[in-house]
Amino acid sequence: MKAAIVGVTGYTGIELVRLIHQHPVLTLGTLHSHSLHKNSISEIYPHLQQLYKQEVEAYDAEKIMACNDLVFFATPSGISKDLVADFVQKDFPVIDLSGDLRLKNLESYRKWYQKEPTTQEMIDQAVYAFPEFTIEKSNLLANPGCYATAAILALVPLVQAELIELDTIILDGKSGLSGAGKQLSDASHYVTVDENMSMYKLNQHQHIPEIIQFLQQFDQTLTTLQFTTSLIPVKRGIFMTLYAKVKLGITLDQIQQTYQQAYENKPFVRLQDGSLPELRQVIGTNFCDIGFGFNEDNRVLTVVSVIDNLVKGAAGQAIQNFNKWAELDETSGLMHVPLFP
Amino acid sequence: MKAAIVGVTGYTGIELVRLIHQHPVLTLGTLHSHSLHKNSISEIYPHLQQLYKQEVEAYDAEKIMACNDLVFFATPSGISKDLVADFVQKDFPVIDLSGDLRLKNLESYRKWYQKEPTTQEMIDQAVYAFPEFTIEKSNLLANPGCYATAAILALVPLVQAELIELDTIILDGKSGLSGAGKQLSDASHYVTVDENMSMYKLNQHQHIPEIIQFLQQFDQTLTTLQFTTSLIPVKRGIFMTLYAKVKLGITLDQIQQTYQQAYENKPFVRLQDGSLPELRQVIGTNFCDIGFGFNEDNRVLTVVSVIDNLVKGAAGQAIQNFNKWAELDETSGLMHVPLFP
Amino acid sequence: MKAAIVGVTGYTGIELVRLIHQHPVLTLGTLHSHSLHKNSISEIYPHLQQLYKQEVEAYDAEKIMACNDLVFFATPSGISKDLVADFVQKDFPVIDLSGDLRLKNLESYRKWYQKEPTTQEMIDQAVYAFPEFTIEKSNLLANPGCYATAAILALVPLVQAELIELDTIILDGKSGLSGAGKQLSDASHYVTVDENMSMYKLNQHQHIPEIIQFLQQFDQTLTTLQFTTSLIPVKRGIFMTLYAKVKLGITLDQIQQTYQQAYENKPFVRLQDGSLPELRQVIGTNFCDIGFGFNEDNRVLTVVSVIDNLVKGAAGQAIQNFNKWAELDETSGLMHVPLFP
Amino acid sequence: MKAAIVGVTGYTGIELVRLIHQHPVLTLGTLHSHSLHKNSISEIYPHLQQLYKQEVEAYDAEKIMACNDLVFFATPSGISKDLVADFVQKDFPVIDLSGDLRLKNLESYRKWYQKEPTTQEMIDQAVYAFPEFTIEKSNLLANPGCYATAAILALVPLVQAELIELDTIILDGKSGLSGAGKQLSDASHYVTVDENMSMYKLNQHQHIPEIIQFLQQFDQTLTTLQFTTSLIPVKRGIFMTLYAKVKLGITLDQIQQTYQQAYENKPFVRLQDGSLPELRQVIGTNFCDIGFGFNEDNRVLTVVSVIDNLVKGAAGQAIQNFNKWAELDETSGLMHVPLFP
Repeated sequence: MKAAIVGVTGYTGIELVRLIHQHPVLTLGTLHSHSLHKNSISEIYPHLQQLYKQEVEAYDAEKIMACNDLVFFATPSGISKDLVADFVQKDFPVIDLSGDLRLKNLESYRKWYQKEPTTQEMIDQAVYAFPEFTIEKSNLLANPGCYATAAILALVPLVQAELIELDTIILDGKSGLSGAGKQLSDASHYVTVDENMSMYKLNQHQHIPEIIQFLQQFDQTLTTLQFTTSLIPVKRGIFMTLYAKVKLGITLDQIQQTYQQAYENKPFVRLQDGSLPELRQVIGTNFCDIGFGFNEDNRVLTVVSVIDNLVKGAAGQAIQNFNKWAELDETSGLMHVPLFP
Repeated sequence: MKAAIVGVTGYTGIELVRLIHQHPVLTLGTLHSHSLHKNSISEIYPHLQQLYKQEVEAYDAEKIMACNDLVFFATPSGISKDLVADFVQKDFPVIDLSGDLRLKNLESYRKWYQKEPTTQEMIDQAVYAFPEFTIEKSNLLANPGCYATAAILALVPLVQAELIELDTIILDGKSGLSGAGKQLSDASHYVTVDENMSMYKLNQHQHIPEIIQFLQQFDQTLTTLQFTTSLIPVKRGIFMTLYAKVKLGITLDQIQQTYQQAYENKPFVRLQDGSLPELRQVIGTNFCDIGFGFNEDNRVLTVVSVIDNLVKGAAGQAIQNFNKWAELDETSGLMHVPLFP
Repeated sequence: MKAAIVGVTGYTGIELVRLIHQHPVLTLGTLHSHSLHKNSISEIYPHLQQLYKQEVEAYDAEKIMACNDLVFFATPSGISKDLVADFVQKDFPVIDLSGDLRLKNLESYRKWYQKEPTTQEMIDQAVYAFPEFTIEKSNLLANPGCYATAAILALVPLVQAELIELDTIILDGKSGLSGAGKQLSDASHYVTVDENMSMYKLNQHQHIPEIIQFLQQFDQTLTTLQFTTSLIPVKRGIFMTLYAKVKLGITLDQIQQTYQQAYENKPFVRLQDGSLPELRQVIGTNFCDIGFGFNEDNRVLTVVSVIDNLVKGAAGQAIQNFNKWAELDETSGLMHVPLFP
Repeated sequence: MKAAIVGVTGYTGIELVRLIHQHPVLTLGTLHSHSLHKNSISEIYPHLQQLYKQEVEAYDAEKIMACNDLVFFATPSGISKDLVADFVQKDFPVIDLSGDLRLKNLESYRKWYQKEPTTQEMIDQAVYAFPEFTIEKSNLLANPGCYATAAILALVPLVQAELIELDTIILDGKSGLSGAGKQLSDASHYVTVDENMSMYKLNQHQHIPEIIQFLQQFDQTLTTLQFTTSLIPVKRGIFMTLYAKVKLGITLDQIQQTYQQAYENKPFVRLQDGSLPELRQVIGTNFCDIGFGFNEDNRVLTVVSVIDNLVKGAAGQAIQNFNKWAELDETSGLMHVPLFP
């Protein structure tokens, strides 16, 4: 099947190219960018020399539908919300990696993204597709955000099994720079980032409403989260730390069993056996590795979940969503060994 | 005044050399190491060529007292506890940068350091010298630990003013590699650390009892802390994040005023004006920069404090303690502009 | 076909595991280590969880031959030279990634490796297998060194076509830390490497004789090289810079055509079109990207070749050698898109 | 004495602030920027909080002369060439850190900088001030470039003593990112730089004519250089490698003695005793450390010189030039211990 990529020159777009290259069913279709048009993708990205010669074209919905079997939107937020209408109208399959179709509440989108939302009709058709939990099918899939992915996989078993006091949840996320995209700013200059760590968007990150919305299907009383995001000097990866008080009487054993049951048949979630995962053990792959420690003195549970923000946090999860949509094995083309060291 | 350094070849020892070089009163005395003896310190450390030619000698308490006015112990834990007796007997001034003399409870030392403690008599004479708060004087000063310094400066105003619920305190510390010392291990190999982040000693870090002991002078009911420590790929620096619920009715204004009053005359604590500090803004200096954000929805206060673990977290604070002991201006020789960028 | 790996816990061993995972014909056979024996390779390397459960066993030549179709030696120099005899005797296929079987002159091995060489008989059977140039076949293949690979691919077209003055060759190689292996030393400590660059083994690197030996098949008069190696703060990759004076009258056009002809049908050598390659464009892959610039004022040609030291410089090239040996397509299982960014 | 800084918000401007802070005679005067005007320099640079509150003002030549004793231009090339006239007219002391006043040949400036040069009159008054070699005095000093500094210190003894064949000189420079300034570009984005190395401006770097011009005072026959510059993933520092063939009959002893004599009374040049310097041993300081190795087989001498590009390569050298101009000890305020590790 041929997949078009809109926004192919961004980090998640180019990561889709890498992953599709190794996929047994998907092949690269037409490539589109708003700003960079070249005769060949490898003129922009020399690492693709002798691998791909596709032209990078201007956006053209008709051509995309004519030449491909589905389309990935790897665009910044605020783009796909207006563009997907053409595809939805013709029921052409869309997987949107941006934040535009994730929030069911249009006001919430307006507040957190500071942009005009899409229409109610459109948002009603979109399915927030978290492949480990979502069973609903649709030709309009909203792929989860990177921080949201790491947070949700850490939290769902606890919330579902009612093990924790919801008002004690603290999510402390650390991300590599690719998470901020390739736009230029003082904050992404090498000299700013190297040998530094900085916190940003304290309680203002746009993935917060997405996490709350998703967790409310397990517990409606969850309405707020403490959520911080920091930049660390690495290219890729999210290191998410979750703290929460477990309810009185809950034991470490119960916590372990809850996680094991939740992820028994989930090939991309790897529970650590009594240890904590390091960031590097998932780089380049679709795995989410989870470990935890329990402090009996104050009943604080610490959970660490690590993902590659561009794979499980973006392009890999999009392929995983495709696999499920296409009724392939969920792991098709995604079972890579991490680049290690 | 001449200062001897025991353990001069470690990171904090060599940092003492750097700071003493710029001090108006202190000069470098005899240098000692257990393992590395050389005719000149610059044979071990080429960065000191043409700056210092002192011999690195074997440890010799008599010689240290004969040739110097005071001694800094920059040794790993487990060394100074046995060696300081000779100095204490003759009331020769000692500033100990290791953890050996910090914990008043000998059992606590045995538990957290997994080593035999010093004697009760010795620990009774030692003063835990936190220069922003300690007024007691002594010729046997225990210099605080690096994580403890960042945690205590973030916490004292809140605990002292009874603004937070003590059982909600969560300390999430991130440190550069120099904090782990220069001993070789898989965990400190470049290939392990680069592009990685890992959590270690979850609720087992030996600075935990030191923080609790110190805070108990402000509130005896504080008996436990949630405390995690992680390694991030930088050489120097601690980025400490504190989360705690403020008590009902406490406002952001009150929090701000409390910090301002606490640190009004403390030249090395710089409160950020409405922003959060980045790690790099303190590197190479004795500053601790503190900022915070308040989530009114769930009453969670987030405080970030950053220090250079080798300066304010070790050698710089030791000089600051010396300055106070010698009745110099607290900032003597310590008011550097950070190396930036 | 099943491949055993001896020395699987080293960086090149574990990279063989990664590459074999994606190979259409090779599968992982028995795994061996001299020091680390575990019930499962994923106990040592958590990044392999749920991908591999093979036991890491002690070395056992009989078992290796009984259970596998070939064996890769990914051992440090000085090991395989004694161990391969058992396999050679039974004509069992061996690909040796160490330096033990590369040098035809035993004295040369003794001089450069400071170790006792293998026997003349053994060295006579071994073929130095540089897949772009070697056509000889053998069941005992010596895989080229990492620096040697980058140097040889930059030099062969020039030497073969007699374009340069041989006594002006200067090779200035920069390598990431994985090239130094995972043994612990001050030189590989994170704090030593980060924000640093250092040159080592000036004209003493053991890859020098291997390069000269190989190039002499094109020009016997080449007997010496200026060769330096430096460490830069990256995990993977070799950035090799070659300087040489071209002979009087040689034009940039001739140089370009020479390279193009030399690498016309070599799928892993990618000539840059008028630009210089960056290190990152080959990471994780078997590509060698080559670019050059010509200074007409002084006739100095500058050639830059970049490889991933663990792939084209070690494990990938070994698989490429296997592909040729097994008469598969040379690129089988090796045509990956680089991990980018 | 009060020093104004024009271009204070750039990396060299802010480094001047750091160095002046530790200087016994210089104090910070007025601060100027073309784009960023703030009530306080510490609003732009939080690392300066509680150290400096000076306003960052628009450029104003009259005010600079009224309020200060001298002015440092820390502006990009193309700015000071037009602005210095006002100061020259009144014989007000100027130290220009940009490239505008370095090249005596106006055509050369036009060619290498791709900008209109200053006037012949102005260039005649400017002195290219290389503090280790220049004795001429002037109120208009052109401070050398960073690569030029590392190259000149490596080359002068060899050229002066006629030890090398001039047409074999190869300079291979590697620089940290701060050398490229803080302007935003794809090339300075963290994700581009981290885990990468790239060569740029091959034989096109604007420091080439400056090096040749300076060396011609020792040997007029030197007219061309092979010169490459690369970026390595560090913040600060230049690692310059020089290759050259020594003339027949020259011995290692002669080379060593030549360097020793050349730098006998030069406090900032530290010759390594038989070893090669690492980049990190000069960071934060005005030192240039030099080491070399000699290959007797092919008479190639390898020289490595390392500097901090922002100190000896810019702001530190400017202070050193000031010290000489003010007839202070050359090392005043510049004898720091490097930040190590």
